[in-house]
Amino acid sequence: MLKAIVLLSGGLDSATVLAIASRKFECHAISFNYAQRSLSEINAASRLAQLNTASHQVIHIDDGVMSGSALTDDTIPVPVESTAGIPVTYVPARNTLFLSHALAVAEVLSSQDIFIGVNAVDYSGYPDCRPEFIRAYESMANLATKAGVEGKLLTIHTPLIDKSKAEIISIGLKLGVDYSQTVSCYQANAEGEACGNCDSCQLRRKGFNEAGVSDPTRYFSSIN
Amino acid sequence: MLKAIVLLSGGLDSATVLAIASRKFECHAISFNYAQRSLSEINAASRLAQLNTASHQVIHIDDGVMSGSALTDDTIPVPVESTAGIPVTYVPARNTLFLSHALAVAEVLSSQDIFIGVNAVDYSGYPDCRPEFIRAYESMANLATKAGVEGKLLTIHTPLIDKSKAEIISIGLKLGVDYSQTVSCYQANAEGEACGNCDSCQLRRKGFNEAGVSDPTRYFSSIN
Repeated sequence: MLKAIVLLSGGLDSATVLAIASRKFECHAISFNYAQRSLSEINAASRLAQLNTASHQVIHIDDGVMSGSALTDDTIPVPVESTAGIPVTYVPARNTLFLSHALAVAEVLSSQDIFIGVNAVDYSGYPDCRPEFIRAYESMANLATKAGVEGKLLTIHTPLIDKSKAEIISIGLKLGVDYSQTVSCYQANAEGEACGNCDSCQLRRKGFNEAGVSDPTRYFSSIN
Repeated sequence: MLKAIVLLSGGLDSATVLAIASRKFECHAISFNYAQRSLSEINAASRLAQLNTASHQVIHIDDGVMSGSALTDDTIPVPVESTAGIPVTYVPARNTLFLSHALAVAEVLSSQDIFIGVNAVDYSGYPDCRPEFIRAYESMANLATKAGVEGKLLTIHTPLIDKSKAEIISIGLKLGVDYSQTVSCYQANAEGEACGNCDSCQLRRKGFNEAGVSDPTRYFSSIN
């Protein structure tokens, strides 16, 4: 079975991607501790990784490298209403850094396949979730590595990129994903309970509604 | 004065790049601790950074992410003779990971300029030192970030990419670089003394010879 590297945040999207990837690949999951506000997502990733992976690494990214975001700086509040443009929850170069770690791990493990749960439909408008970014990253990666030069070309798989949140949930439920184990909230508490009001919570709740499925998310506050 | 991020390994090339960049930019240097064989290069970077930088961060990259190279795995000997193809001193996705950290730091500091001392003339044949890689990285980076989307485009400066080692040394000497403070050796000892025989030492020594300058490198062993 070929190996794949799966970026596993512990959220709804990456849990679904892991379920998809594990049907055809031996999955090596990586998660990141980047001083993000909600560390309970790493616990969720560890729980999810117990089911479908051959290995799981939690990689540390130094404090300060991705600062200045509401997700990495406690003094910037997480907004509860949508704003024009790219929101303050944007984290500088996050997916570039995540994919670059995945690229190194892929070469070390002789894998040519990376899975990432980016989505450009029901999303927060982050530039590094768009198809043009992913294509550019893949092209760059194949020039960057010894593997690429030797013709072992890398593919970045984005099975969710054009799916609505409701479609993602429907796919995941068919594959047996237990969404009660996932944490999407930008400011989940230590128990993994969600605020219900941030952009990520709103997109997630709308997804369960539109999929016609009851929302298994545990909330710590009343929903607006 | 505009800010620039300068990748500073502590070697001859990056010391020269810092001297070039500091003529026009307020320089913020970053170095990496990635479990490389020769940690004395970080000490060299710290010494060099004292002269020409507004700040210097040493960023940690987790052990294992870039393993399987003679530079990160003590069980793989550093070769003393040139080999065909990309040598075992190649480190998986190294410049991609370095540039991705620089990209994040640049966005955090509102800088649009990154300097990197890659060279595609007197070099070890690494794919991530080639002009086509740098161009692809820059294109990707400008799709990845909020800054890029808002038209604050990033430039990756590679002032040494087409220079011979002798030309680099001549440029640096005119700018006052003290090459006795730099460490290029793949297996320098804790005092920063060089082996004199690895690919990097050979390229460096040839450069001083061709530039007609005495070699200030301190060696710990006799030179082959």
